[in-house]
Amino acid sequence: MRAEIIAVGTELLLGQIVNTNAQYLSRGLAELGIDVYYQTVVGDNKDRLIQAIKIGRERADLLVFTGGLGPTMDDLTRDALADYLGREVALHEPTMSKITAMFAGRGGAFVESNRRQALLVDGATPLRNDTGLAVGNALSVDGTHYLLLPGPPREMKPMFANDGTAWLKSIMGEADSLHSVMLKFAGIGESGLEDLLIDLIREQSDPTIAPYAAEGEVTIRVSTKAANAEEAARKLEPTLMEIRSRTPMHLYAEEDIPIETAVIRLLTSQRRMVTLAESCTGGMVAAMLTTVPGSADAFRGGVVSYSNLLKHRALGVPLPLLEGADAPGAVSAQTASAMAEGALALADADFAVSVTGVAGPAASEGKPVGLVFLGLAERGKETRVTQLQLSGDRQGIRLRASKRALYMLWLALTGRG
Amino acid sequence: MRAEIIAVGTELLLGQIVNTNAQYLSRGLAELGIDVYYQTVVGDNKDRLIQAIKIGRERADLLVFTGGLGPTMDDLTRDALADYLGREVALHEPTMSKITAMFAGRGGAFVESNRRQALLVDGATPLRNDTGLAVGNALSVDGTHYLLLPGPPREMKPMFANDGTAWLKSIMGEADSLHSVMLKFAGIGESGLEDLLIDLIREQSDPTIAPYAAEGEVTIRVSTKAANAEEAARKLEPTLMEIRSRTPMHLYAEEDIPIETAVIRLLTSQRRMVTLAESCTGGMVAAMLTTVPGSADAFRGGVVSYSNLLKHRALGVPLPLLEGADAPGAVSAQTASAMAEGALALADADFAVSVTGVAGPAASEGKPVGLVFLGLAERGKETRVTQLQLSGDRQGIRLRASKRALYMLWLALTGRG
Repeated sequence: MRAEIIAVGTELLLGQIVNTNAQYLSRGLAELGIDVYYQTVVGDNKDRLIQAIKIGRERADLLVFTGGLGPTMDDLTRDALADYLGREVALHEPTMSKITAMFAGRGGAFVESNRRQALLVDGATPLRNDTGLAVGNALSVDGTHYLLLPGPPREMKPMFANDGTAWLKSIMGEADSLHSVMLKFAGIGESGLEDLLIDLIREQSDPTIAPYAAEGEVTIRVSTKAANAEEAARKLEPTLMEIRSRTPMHLYAEEDIPIETAVIRLLTSQRRMVTLAESCTGGMVAAMLTTVPGSADAFRGGVVSYSNLLKHRALGVPLPLLEGADAPGAVSAQTASAMAEGALALADADFAVSVTGVAGPAASEGKPVGLVFLGLAERGKETRVTQLQLSGDRQGIRLRASKRALYMLWLALTGRG
Repeated sequence: MRAEIIAVGTELLLGQIVNTNAQYLSRGLAELGIDVYYQTVVGDNKDRLIQAIKIGRERADLLVFTGGLGPTMDDLTRDALADYLGREVALHEPTMSKITAMFAGRGGAFVESNRRQALLVDGATPLRNDTGLAVGNALSVDGTHYLLLPGPPREMKPMFANDGTAWLKSIMGEADSLHSVMLKFAGIGESGLEDLLIDLIREQSDPTIAPYAAEGEVTIRVSTKAANAEEAARKLEPTLMEIRSRTPMHLYAEEDIPIETAVIRLLTSQRRMVTLAESCTGGMVAAMLTTVPGSADAFRGGVVSYSNLLKHRALGVPLPLLEGADAPGAVSAQTASAMAEGALALADADFAVSVTGVAGPAASEGKPVGLVFLGLAERGKETRVTQLQLSGDRQGIRLRASKRALYMLWLALTGRG
């Protein structure tokens, strides 16, 4: 099946927002085995929207819309499709009851325009909206399938993942669907990983092996088409085993989670606590760990020792390490080690990770931009330090240093390093 | 002039990357006074690319392409346009010399396919690429203008901003161009700001007033068309003065910078230092401040006191505040105040900002998700505490609490609160 994604909204054409919906839907459709041939963005203008539908209908079997289902007169997707198909729109009573109840609950006056969010094109299947008011629409006419989703990502994503996916599977019939496993790697770049797997990537046919790049993360998706999960697992397993055997020091998850989630899970299951001493990353590692719900059971907090004063006062780093012509300085293996040990003692934790380096844009202490030392102190063990030379701009260096710090902790938690 | 942006690349259709180029170009074209009517994404397929050119030519005067100018056989944009126009492609000698010199400098073998990056459609103006190899193409045929830019943002952006913009101005002739001022607000939501400015927004014609929404930030762009910067300033000033007079507690910048940059600049110019004591934001405020180059001159670092142990040990928060049936608890005005005062003393700073709250997903200490206390300790002054009830998910609450903490500091630094 050939699909086209049509995102509706003048704010996209003005560049006020990025079209992340198109990416989300493209990935989701690919996982269902549906090929996306075009993405289109059109403004809140009925004539141009109808033109986009006409063009889309000629070159695709499935048109997936996002946006234009809200309450205002600018929300035109339903009306445009109904006009194009020569159909009426009608009120979906369960959605209308939900909207009325919500306004009654708030004690606010019901605004008439909200009724628009309960409209369905005649013949359409309603798609539940668990995180908002506008009902989704799904219908098939003359061999073309139309799926209408809201624009706000927090409404669009669950609707697509739930009722939207179920409807797509129903129109695809009994054909095999795509099953994928996401493999996540740390401590290695995309090209380094490709070197390890180059023959597998070159010779792939089924399962397919597709790399995904994102700043600071390396992901590979291994996919196959199969009738059910058991058959998929059987087909995927030999490839997965081969990849696992080649990447024992880097493969940290077989699902799409960041390394901070993997680390928090390991700490929690081992009932161990970590603390941090961050200099050049300035709180980024802590901010990553605390994005994970429940991180308070594994992360005791830490010190952002951005100044020598705090390195000394809060972490007990000796001043002779930091100051004076012959001192190793704030960016040194000795300081990284002392920061980690100071944090371990301060927070009474099982692990302490430290980061100190030069994020740029200018060199510091005569040391080059990108030079970073990571320290790992573990209760009852020798403290270890790793030296890195990272490339990129200030934010890139900080992000990669943060991810490498978490990778160092992952190695220790899994007994690998 | 009506424009369409055509992004070329199968990786976009697979959802491997987000189409940030379309946003960048949409904004850039809007600033030149060019209206974008459609954005299209098409894969690395010559037939479908030619179809997209045909459709684009019918509905736009200017087609701006990104992607497909690289060295591989998948890079088809030039070839597709040449085929569509019935023209040849020819080598652009200066680009070819640059490519050859680069390979000679590296001592690597010249790969023949790199020659493709020096190709121009017959009659096209070459656009300089300062950050890569592929030369850009710009040409006008039968009233339609074609602008071909590379796909990688670090090549596309400078090419568009330099030679691309110059060429667009030349084809637009002597018409006035758009001049804009970005106004940035903190401590107020988008709807709150609209309430303050509603009559201005309703009655706008020239200058125009356009809100931009982004999580945790509120931005307004005030724009007018003018022949030069002086005329633009004269036309914009009355509107800017009116907005300034209505929003003295919220307008923190008249350029597109985040509040962390505004705060670091104020601290630096006042030669004062800040420190932080973060609980629920878990290092996010520190990470924001340290994105700003030069922040080390204004930010001493701080404590991520994610556990009661660190609140007590590192910040000196008294245990009776934290523990026991009748204690106010970690999420309380008293603890926020003690955290800020403890941080101020520890870091010997001029200001200390503290954040403690319930980010969720679950309530904590019997307190509701979204309850946040911010503390502000200032050397020689009474410590102040602000209580917030924020809505949203875990990440949204953490982000808004972080921005509000920086806003509280901005108020103090500007003598407003």
